Amino acid sequence: MVVILKQNPDKAQLKSLMTWLESKGVSVHTTVGAQQTILGLVGDTSALDIDLISALDIVEAVRRVQEPYKSANRKFHPADTVVKVGNAEIGGGGLALIAGPGSVESEEQICSLAEELKNAGACILWGGAFKSRTSPYSFQGLRGEGLKYLLAAKRASGLPIAAEVTDMSQLGLFEDVDMIIVGGRNMQNYELLKALGASDKPVLLKRGVSSTYEELLMSAEYIMSEGNGNVVLCERGIRTFENHTAHTFDITAVPVLKQLSHLPVIADPSNSSGRANLVAPLSEAAVAAGADGLIIAVHNDPSHAMCDGPLSLKPEAFGVLCRRLEKIRAARDSE
Amino acid sequence: MVVILKQNPDKAQLKSLMTWLESKGVSVHTTVGAQQTILGLVGDTSALDIDLISALDIVEAVRRVQEPYKSANRKFHPADTVVKVGNAEIGGGGLALIAGPGSVESEEQICSLAEELKNAGACILWGGAFKSRTSPYSFQGLRGEGLKYLLAAKRASGLPIAAEVTDMSQLGLFEDVDMIIVGGRNMQNYELLKALGASDKPVLLKRGVSSTYEELLMSAEYIMSEGNGNVVLCERGIRTFENHTAHTFDITAVPVLKQLSHLPVIADPSNSSGRANLVAPLSEAAVAAGADGLIIAVHNDPSHAMCDGPLSLKPEAFGVLCRRLEKIRAARDSE
Amino acid sequence: MVVILKQNPDKAQLKSLMTWLESKGVSVHTTVGAQQTILGLVGDTSALDIDLISALDIVEAVRRVQEPYKSANRKFHPADTVVKVGNAEIGGGGLALIAGPGSVESEEQICSLAEELKNAGACILWGGAFKSRTSPYSFQGLRGEGLKYLLAAKRASGLPIAAEVTDMSQLGLFEDVDMIIVGGRNMQNYELLKALGASDKPVLLKRGVSSTYEELLMSAEYIMSEGNGNVVLCERGIRTFENHTAHTFDITAVPVLKQLSHLPVIADPSNSSGRANLVAPLSEAAVAAGADGLIIAVHNDPSHAMCDGPLSLKPEAFGVLCRRLEKIRAARDSE
Amino acid sequence: MVVILKQNPDKAQLKSLMTWLESKGVSVHTTVGAQQTILGLVGDTSALDIDLISALDIVEAVRRVQEPYKSANRKFHPADTVVKVGNAEIGGGGLALIAGPGSVESEEQICSLAEELKNAGACILWGGAFKSRTSPYSFQGLRGEGLKYLLAAKRASGLPIAAEVTDMSQLGLFEDVDMIIVGGRNMQNYELLKALGASDKPVLLKRGVSSTYEELLMSAEYIMSEGNGNVVLCERGIRTFENHTAHTFDITAVPVLKQLSHLPVIADPSNSSGRANLVAPLSEAAVAAGADGLIIAVHNDPSHAMCDGPLSLKPEAFGVLCRRLEKIRAARDSE
Repeated sequence: MVVILKQNPDKAQLKSLMTWLESKGVSVHTTVGAQQTILGLVGDTSALDIDLISALDIVEAVRRVQEPYKSANRKFHPADTVVKVGNAEIGGGGLALIAGPGSVESEEQICSLAEELKNAGACILWGGAFKSRTSPYSFQGLRGEGLKYLLAAKRASGLPIAAEVTDMSQLGLFEDVDMIIVGGRNMQNYELLKALGASDKPVLLKRGVSSTYEELLMSAEYIMSEGNGNVVLCERGIRTFENHTAHTFDITAVPVLKQLSHLPVIADPSNSSGRANLVAPLSEAAVAAGADGLIIAVHNDPSHAMCDGPLSLKPEAFGVLCRRLEKIRAARDSE
Repeated sequence: MVVILKQNPDKAQLKSLMTWLESKGVSVHTTVGAQQTILGLVGDTSALDIDLISALDIVEAVRRVQEPYKSANRKFHPADTVVKVGNAEIGGGGLALIAGPGSVESEEQICSLAEELKNAGACILWGGAFKSRTSPYSFQGLRGEGLKYLLAAKRASGLPIAAEVTDMSQLGLFEDVDMIIVGGRNMQNYELLKALGASDKPVLLKRGVSSTYEELLMSAEYIMSEGNGNVVLCERGIRTFENHTAHTFDITAVPVLKQLSHLPVIADPSNSSGRANLVAPLSEAAVAAGADGLIIAVHNDPSHAMCDGPLSLKPEAFGVLCRRLEKIRAARDSE
Repeated sequence: MVVILKQNPDKAQLKSLMTWLESKGVSVHTTVGAQQTILGLVGDTSALDIDLISALDIVEAVRRVQEPYKSANRKFHPADTVVKVGNAEIGGGGLALIAGPGSVESEEQICSLAEELKNAGACILWGGAFKSRTSPYSFQGLRGEGLKYLLAAKRASGLPIAAEVTDMSQLGLFEDVDMIIVGGRNMQNYELLKALGASDKPVLLKRGVSSTYEELLMSAEYIMSEGNGNVVLCERGIRTFENHTAHTFDITAVPVLKQLSHLPVIADPSNSSGRANLVAPLSEAAVAAGADGLIIAVHNDPSHAMCDGPLSLKPEAFGVLCRRLEKIRAARDSE
Repeated sequence: MVVILKQNPDKAQLKSLMTWLESKGVSVHTTVGAQQTILGLVGDTSALDIDLISALDIVEAVRRVQEPYKSANRKFHPADTVVKVGNAEIGGGGLALIAGPGSVESEEQICSLAEELKNAGACILWGGAFKSRTSPYSFQGLRGEGLKYLLAAKRASGLPIAAEVTDMSQLGLFEDVDMIIVGGRNMQNYELLKALGASDKPVLLKRGVSSTYEELLMSAEYIMSEGNGNVVLCERGIRTFENHTAHTFDITAVPVLKQLSHLPVIADPSNSSGRANLVAPLSEAAVAAGADGLIIAVHNDPSHAMCDGPLSLKPEAFGVLCRRLEKIRAARDSE
């Protein structure tokens, strides 16, 4: 951490700052210039509250040098983490395809779809039960009932399942769900993250639409610092000025998150773009850029889906895509 | 609502769409052009799921004409709403000043501060107890204990109090809190919003850092459609490419929200900018633009605050600002 | 185009609008609802000034239905355009690799680099001569002298060359340059675009960092409407809140621009990310998503480059990347 | 400037960096930590090319501490600059109101409007002659002819005039124009800025829609470093995800630019919002926040304006606004 002092800092205040920093186990090196004095802090600065230092009268600015996340940081855990979800694995070189409908609509629907997705190449079944909708007048999902249908499809197909939680109070219903999805709107719902950190169930943590890479990793840190290391990061589009698509898919997140962290990184091209006809090229791009997997919206009849129709693939299109993705992955990993 | 069809739409599908729309009580007027056919839908379209229509094979695009919010919409409630918070009022021409520390630190601190703020001109005391912090390693607030100190300050000063809730499960502790604050990170925590809609306690709803005006109003709609009309909207800065300040204070939100909605609109210049030396000019701007009030971070000793030090005013500076704001309000409302 | 009228529009004004619209060869269909009247305009609306209509007292809003660009629009030119640059081609299924240094530094440098790039797989040599730098104190490029060295490298290597123009007045120097680059900062320098439209020299038009897809296509339209159809579109990163990288590479631009337009689309992963260690994954992603080519910064000695060092690949790394890209392209185009 | 080295930097490379830095007159202080080595550079670092240092193999990151602009920097010129435009002044405590039509349409129009604006309180007449339009099919302005009409209005009214230049080649026509406007799209047209720096004519430099405060100041620096100190900065809205208005008016720019620089700062509420009914509240906000002036679009008949109709005030509304603004300015400057 680097602290830049204002011109002519008060000496008593400066001394008190130095003493406090050293009491925190941090050593301080001072560079005095004609116009500025710079303090270089060396040691474990992650426990220093940057706000406290910034607020001092003698301080002009504080710049972090070290990343504020530890458990998620690749510097301290160089090897890739592999997260096991039932009999599936995310990370470690393979390509995990998670697929399912934006909304579970009936037991028949989800069971027959699960079979098709499994045959096409999906290794985890996903389905929406508790929905986060912008409008209170939109369909809110089948909620607990939807989860029951999803569990039936798990038993029938043998696929592990993933579903989104929208409030801590629902967690009791998720006991047999294999992976819990935290949607972008809840990425900074810290009470929920702490609750998820207390179990060891895999968590698929989606990036908020206006969250930085660092904020996403800090949210992972909330889960990991409570003891749950089974976190999968997911890029799902950010909000920009361009509104031709629902969001702007940030492909750079894939290689950057893999550089910064040892956690697996997957992508959600369906929600990123909001358009079925962009899912294939964006999926191929994500795999080429190094993604460990994808989560894709697939519906047996998108034109009559209760939600997410415009962004859902049909099962056949998903099957064709799976085969193409495998070729791209092979090309990416070739010499 | 306007539905733009693809070229040469399938006739059977088109007929089925028309029948379905009419069954919803919407009448349809068709404009056939050489290259495009446009359907104009007239009537109450707020119950139509735009996703469902967009997903149809024959549809190229759907454009809303009518706003999707009803309870919050000024078109249907032309008169300004006034929200009563204890003995204070927000909306209706006055200027409501809400002030307090980012974090309640002790009973002495908050009680003595409350007295100063009341004398300076604040009508509601605000204090942070449950904090939303980006890092799990940062101070998380005194939580329930902080609320107790805040309630003591309410009794001592006679000021009504406002505090932020960060999870539905905390609501039991807020019984004697006069106004509940929903922070920007929770603006789309819909389960929380529904729970707040079930009471009649005033809610201060802060705009999320990447939420549109319409999304903010739809979140207000979640509370109002459950029966609670005591909602105050708050602009608190949006996320843009400019990072000189914490966020970009969107002054335009003030007049636009007042045009679109009858709800009171206030501004939070402290969190918007993250810098104490910008609080005065941004407060003055917000009042000049028509804000019904402000929420301002004030701390007795910002240099040693447990959080939000860099953005907190000292009580004396707050007092000076209050007097200036009153003059600006008078100038704004003059002929 | 759809025109939404205010409630109870003045009848005389409405009649005058209708007459005017019909005089422009546009037919108007009216949908009268309880709360709104909607006019559906059918015919060639590209010549209607949307500002003029929006300004009318009786009009609430105007929504475009038809794209405002014609020459660049795939609807009117379904077949892919192939742009010839010397003996190279961009578009039509191949993968055109354009490579070179951010700044031409000497004749020896650029000639030896050209040879290496040609052997590695580049089909067009690019070099910076007139530089657009944020600071007047930064190196501004060798300007005319740089162009001379680049022309020498063209003669020596046989590669066609591309270079950026930063003002109309420089165009005389570009006679033997095979493709003119318009940088993102000049994407809306309309006087320059018109001047380029008057020749038939290929133009590589880079998207501005805050330009929408439609604005990019409208800038292409400026060139094409003057008679020059040899335009190549280039995604080079947009400005968002994320500042880990120089810009956010918008991969979605690649498939969307190819859907909307028949022009070739390439990508610039070097300037998008500003980091050499992201150029490979972003290049692979762009090709997987369907790009017709790439423009990549390569320097013989990035650590001592006069500009763009941090984002430049070494020639060997470029060679390795070229081989990988060819495999990805084959996988993308497979069944 | 602070240079953060990678772990275990190569010693020979480090020594060579140190020697080079010292040869530039910069002294270096080294802080060695267990995980990182930090170099603190002290002295005049504005001539160091940050790219060159970042590109070195041993360097992880470089952080600026000092602002990269000098002539525009308030640290080196504490007193406010006042720019004289004919008999008007911008800066120094007054409120300069610049007003006129988005497009000059005829001599009669602009002469009669000038008289009205002068009586209402404008001190400089502005009029569009060379227009920057997104579409080549939109009205491009009367160009040279428009300038002639504007000059006639200058003679008739006695008001100094301001007009926008869209290309360097037009400058010959601007000899009798009192202030040259550089639009947001040309804020980084560096060849144009250098040409304007060579004269001493006042320049109104508008912020680009995606430019940071620092980039705006660096563009001012291009003009000032060539010898022309008569620069007025102008906030005119930035591009964000919110598209209810044309752009998002960044009110924070006003106090921040005045803190960072000694140059006068004005605001353009008309182009920022694109809506006439927001011009008054945004103007009042800008003045309350400390703006030295405003540039406002006023048209005698907005419904029939050749461009910018939806954002133009009528002269009477402008007159009412002027009187209100004077009261707000007085309130702002009161004790």
